[in-house]
Formats: sequence, C-alpha cells, structure tokens
Amino acid sequence: MRGRMRDFHGSYIPPFKLGSPIEGFGVGRVVDSTHPGFGAGDFVSGMTGWEDYSLITKLEQLRKIQPESDIPLSYHLGLLGMPGFTAYVGFYEICSPKKGEFVFVSAASGAVGQIVGQLAKLHGCYVVGSAGSNQKVELLKEKFGFDAAFNYKEEPDLTAALKRYFPEGIDIYFENVGGQMLDAVLLNMRTHGRIAVCGMVSQHGVTSPVGIHNLFALVSKRIDMKGFIQSDYHHLFPQFVDAITKHYRDGKIVYVEDVSVGLESGPAAFVGLFSGRNVGKQVVCVSQD
Amino acid sequence: MRGRMRDFHGSYIPPFKLGSPIEGFGVGRVVDSTHPGFGAGDFVSGMTGWEDYSLITKLEQLRKIQPESDIPLSYHLGLLGMPGFTAYVGFYEICSPKKGEFVFVSAASGAVGQIVGQLAKLHGCYVVGSAGSNQKVELLKEKFGFDAAFNYKEEPDLTAALKRYFPEGIDIYFENVGGQMLDAVLLNMRTHGRIAVCGMVSQHGVTSPVGIHNLFALVSKRIDMKGFIQSDYHHLFPQFVDAITKHYRDGKIVYVEDVSVGLESGPAAFVGLFSGRNVGKQVVCVSQD
Repeated sequence: MRGRMRDFHGSYIPPFKLGSPIEGFGVGRVVDSTHPGFGAGDFVSGMTGWEDYSLITKLEQLRKIQPESDIPLSYHLGLLGMPGFTAYVGFYEICSPKKGEFVFVSAASGAVGQIVGQLAKLHGCYVVGSAGSNQKVELLKEKFGFDAAFNYKEEPDLTAALKRYFPEGIDIYFENVGGQMLDAVLLNMRTHGRIAVCGMVSQHGVTSPVGIHNLFALVSKRIDMKGFIQSDYHHLFPQFVDAITKHYRDGKIVYVEDVSVGLESGPAAFVGLFSGRNVGKQVVCVSQD
Repeated sequence: MRGRMRDFHGSYIPPFKLGSPIEGFGVGRVVDSTHPGFGAGDFVSGMTGWEDYSLITKLEQLRKIQPESDIPLSYHLGLLGMPGFTAYVGFYEICSPKKGEFVFVSAASGAVGQIVGQLAKLHGCYVVGSAGSNQKVELLKEKFGFDAAFNYKEEPDLTAALKRYFPEGIDIYFENVGGQMLDAVLLNMRTHGRIAVCGMVSQHGVTSPVGIHNLFALVSKRIDMKGFIQSDYHHLFPQFVDAITKHYRDGKIVYVEDVSVGLESGPAAFVGLFSGRNVGKQVVCVSQD
C-alpha cells in the first residue's frame, strides 16, 4: 500500500487515485450481489476500499470464505490470507529450505515474519528473528518458538550481532526490511545461501534509500537473491489453506494480530507500521457487525 | 586476482602471500614431472606463478591441453579456459535464456563478455553490450555481432541510455561491473528478469563501494539475481570445450586478445584492466619459447 502512494507506474500494481478511497485487503459480508458466484450474506475476502460499504466490480481477487467458529474472520487477512500465503510461498518456493539450515528472518514478528519463522521451525531449521522492540523479541522467543531473537535497535553493529547469532553463517535470509540489515546479512551469508526478497520496509518513504554496499558477496558466496510476489503462485493457494489450517488446529502455528478499532483509526494504524508500533499483523476493524 | 590483494579471508580463494609470486591462470610446457599424469613436453593450463618457471604441487586445477595448429595456446586462458567457461556456465546455467529475449552485457568486450554476447546471439537473443571506449563499441558491433553497443563513459544518464536500447526492458543482465550500471539496469529490467552476477569490476579497489539503491525492483519485478563461480560447474567443462571448439571452427564464435609481451609487462597490463585499457582478453606472454 505504501508503494501505491508514490506516482510510480512501473510496479506490479498502479498508484492510488487521488480523491478515491484507499484500497487494501479486507474481509466483509456481501449485502447485495448481481454476480451469480456471490450472494447476500456470503463472507468474502479481497481488495476493498477503506470504507463502511464497498462496491466491488473487479472480482479477480475476491474470494468467498467460510466463517468457522475456531478461526477469527480477520485471520483471512493474515494467517490464511495474503501475508500467510506470502510466507508459505516465500519459504517453500523461494528459499529451497533443508532441514538443519540456519534461517534469519527480519521484521520477524510482523504479519509475514511470524509465519515464516514457525514454518522454518516445523521444517527443522534453526531460526533467529530480528524485531524493533524488546516486547516483540519476547514474543518471537516465547510465543513463536524462534531459537533466538534480537532487538536490532539495540545492536550498534548489525554485522557483529549476526555473527554472534550465526557463528557458522546464514543459509536462508527472509528479507523484509532492506537497508543496513541487508548489508550486514550479506557479510554473514554462507556459500550457496538464498535470500528471498519479500519487501524492504525500511526503504519506504525514504527519499534517498540506503545504498547496499556488499553485493560482491553474491559472487564470492554464490548467493541466489530472488524477489517474489505471492500472486504469481495462486495455484498453490488451496494447498496453503489446507496446510496452514491443519497446523493451526494442531496447535503447531499460532498467530498474533494488532487490532485497532474503527475506520477512523486506520490512518494512524497504517503510519504506525513504518515505525514498528504494531505488534503482529495490523488489522483495522471497521465494524463488528 | 584483484580480490586476492586484500587481506580478506572470507572469499572462495585465500589472499596472496606477501613475498610470494603473484598467481594467475597460465599455460606452459612441462619441463620435468614426478607425477605419472604429466610428462616433460606436455602442455598444461592451470594456476601458475607469474614467473619463468613454476614448481606446481597443487594439481587440482592443472589440466593437460592438446596444442592444435588452428587454436592459439593462449586461447586456453580465454575462449577455451576459465573466462570462456564462465561465460558458458553463466549464460546457460544461470540466465535460463529463451530465444527472443533481450540481453544486456556490461564489460562486453572483455574476456567473458565477448563470449556471452556471441552465445546469446547464437541462442536467438537480442544483445546489447556496454564498454568503455568507442573502439570497443565498434568491436562489439562489427566483430562480435552485438545488435547494438554503447560507450558508457559517453552516457550521462545510464538509466535513460538503457531505456533507449531496451524500450521493452531487459530480460537478462550479465553483470560484470556493479555500481551505477547495476542501479540503472535494475530500473530497466522486465518482470521475471534474471541477473547473473559474474563480477563487479568497478568496485575493486574502491574503499567505499558505490551503494546500490534500486534493489526494491527485485520484488516489484520478481527478479532472480544470482552470483556464480565457474568452478562449481566443473562437470560441464568437457561439454563446454567441445561446444565452443566447434563454434570456433565453424566460424560462429571469434575471440579477441590483448597480448602484452614479457613478464615485466605484467603489472602494467594488470593495472590496465581496471581502467579498461585492454581491448579483449588481457594476456601476458612470458616467453614465446
């Protein structure tokens, strides 16, 4: 969404239109429909406006969902939605993980990171996460089962910190932040390591992004650094939902949300993402109805 | 070799030892041998000292070569040696090329680039190369058959230059230089493009390397950027020699060397690489004998 607030047309999704409602992923209930696939009362997930009622004409991303008593509806925006699917695709399709490998996740308590870390643990990897507060670090260790975690704001030398947490180096880096963290990771990667580039949140809204200086490591360590977008893998969505729902019901995956209440709380909740104020997946509850 | 002049032990090859001869790839004739695989008079290619006579005890990289009347011995250091193999592996194994794709090669008249460009043309790709002099640009177009070529020193805006040469964008970038060229390429890549990172010569010896600012393109365009080293693919060496020898004999691949004569010319020839003084693969002829 932040990317759509720039006047840049080269991306995979066009900029927001000035004067129109902001769009984002939402869940809701159908009030009325002229489309045979959807009827009044159906629950759906997809691209909606930040508004009480949305008129949806582009149906490509709209999915019917089945409300179930043990799964909060909002999880279809996180664990069972785009962020969860991003974690699933990124970890299994891009990282080529092997049991016993060393995995580092940045923004690890976020909507995507918390799932990546748990999938990596289920896969038999050693997993370390970074986050921006001690509360989040506790969450990573106590709730999500990371082997270790650290508060990057308290590390004056990220390269040294990573060397401490990964004395043998990093096999897999799940990249959510960019900037100085990426540079420090490059110096700590192992030969034939993989970097799944999911996002670079530290660089959003920055007028002159931090330059990355250690890309020569890509050659000396034969690193594969690959950007991806979940929507390229939509054929895997059903198997993702099945797998994650089972893990969740078996108690093998947990999920943490940060819910702010009321449409009017949306802008502050959104801006908070870029200073890391949220703990877990940020959700705005427009209506309890 | 430039990398081995730093006191850095994290690379795939250790630094040079102070007081010992510089090492590099060389061809020569065996004077005497206690190894059953090599006899006096044999021609060999491998890691040798910069010296008139070398005592070679590490045989891993030493290969017997067959001198043939139509192939200069020095070609085993280039077209049929490490640079040629680097081009072969990088293009076929890392770039996943498809007929009709748009390929950009930097340092395109160099030891590796000239072969990459010719392989890409043989594969049915559209190929543009950059080089650092008008003489080299002519060579690319007239001798190596590139579809277009430009002198990067005469382009004040590399991003705009690439947009001119690739109005539809770049599918494959064969990266030899790093720095500002890489940043400009990132802005001009197509969705699902591939970047084979072979080297970043512009960053050698630079105390503060140029920062790369446009890596967000890896995500928005789902780019796969992969470093590689030819020696990881040694099982492909025999098929490489067969394929390239055939192309050479069929007149489908040509090769250009820049030969400096005399061991004493070595240091200047080496330093010249970093200002681009050489035209084609730089070779130092220690002895005509």
